[in-house]
Amino acid sequence: MALFITFEGGEGSGKSTQAKLLLKKLQEHNIPAVLTHEPGGTALGNELRRVLKRKQGTPIAPGAELFLFAASRVQLVAELIRPALEQGKVVICDRFVHSTLVYQGYGRGLDLTVIEMVNKIATQNLRPDLTILLDISPEQGLMRRRSLEDRFEQEALSFHRSVGEGYVKLAAADPDRWLVIDASLPKQKIADIIWETVSKLLPNFSA
Amino acid sequence: MALFITFEGGEGSGKSTQAKLLLKKLQEHNIPAVLTHEPGGTALGNELRRVLKRKQGTPIAPGAELFLFAASRVQLVAELIRPALEQGKVVICDRFVHSTLVYQGYGRGLDLTVIEMVNKIATQNLRPDLTILLDISPEQGLMRRRSLEDRFEQEALSFHRSVGEGYVKLAAADPDRWLVIDASLPKQKIADIIWETVSKLLPNFSA
Repeated sequence: MALFITFEGGEGSGKSTQAKLLLKKLQEHNIPAVLTHEPGGTALGNELRRVLKRKQGTPIAPGAELFLFAASRVQLVAELIRPALEQGKVVICDRFVHSTLVYQGYGRGLDLTVIEMVNKIATQNLRPDLTILLDISPEQGLMRRRSLEDRFEQEALSFHRSVGEGYVKLAAADPDRWLVIDASLPKQKIADIIWETVSKLLPNFSA
Repeated sequence: MALFITFEGGEGSGKSTQAKLLLKKLQEHNIPAVLTHEPGGTALGNELRRVLKRKQGTPIAPGAELFLFAASRVQLVAELIRPALEQGKVVICDRFVHSTLVYQGYGRGLDLTVIEMVNKIATQNLRPDLTILLDISPEQGLMRRRSLEDRFEQEALSFHRSVGEGYVKLAAADPDRWLVIDASLPKQKIADIIWETVSKLLPNFSA
């Protein structure tokens, strides 16, 4: 039953809401599941999340940012994701390796090969079985935010556009593992599409 | 005149004292020099240093530790070391890439090739011109400490022995860039040996 599902998308795409709805749905069907997020999900990760998201202080060098996300990821995989998968749970993670590829790679311009290498070291080659992309234009996404609350949300529109393009490229390169959904659809419609795909991946499950 | 010198050695080897004495000597000769240390040396680095050194809390996964040191290093190189070298200064750094190789590699058993890759990314291939190793047995080194103050000092003796062996191997593999000094020599004698080597590396300097 072990299944590893990640959610990806730009700011305001509604992925965190959908991750929670999926968890709820799984729980309603008595399927053991956990929901976590990046950066964070562990004590160390949450501490690094605060460092990464805050607005004041000296700018963090892009390479340092890459390694801080990687450190948070190592800890999350070791402490939570792998043990849960070994217990046969469905693990849902709000952002994972692909966020690093699009934000630090397509967004900040770091070398994609370097990021892939760092991601592999950090996850010890653990890959999601399914990645759900909530696709939204940066204009729409940022409009949904009441205020620009962290360092990433405050980036220029061109940054968020590169992020969006990066996601589309990654999804196109590996269509079997990605589910791309138009994030402007109604919330419940999106949840239905997600459940249709996820329920098929649960081998012992009949809806 | 730009010269990049790093100090390495186990706990209690006296390297921090010698790094300070070298800075003082350079200043006495009006040679522009800065002293910094790892992890730390920047606001971000000092924050990560606190995370890495503290004793309480969930253990940090070895891979996460590796990336936290790397993040601190990126920031230090970008914010302080490279700008100082570009200004023609002598930069002295108390611990650098080799500490990661011996503590996380020889000590914790992480793959040395992986660490070298991460080090290269973190430094963007910046290498010290000279690395000074203060060689001490772990028994002697730990005896010099009044109390075991952080996570690293608290490790078992076998860990510190692997660290010491790692240093000796690294130095033997690249003798032109390493100066190995017996740390049990008197403090002033060590400072004299260091100055003899460093002063020869300063092209416009006559003692």
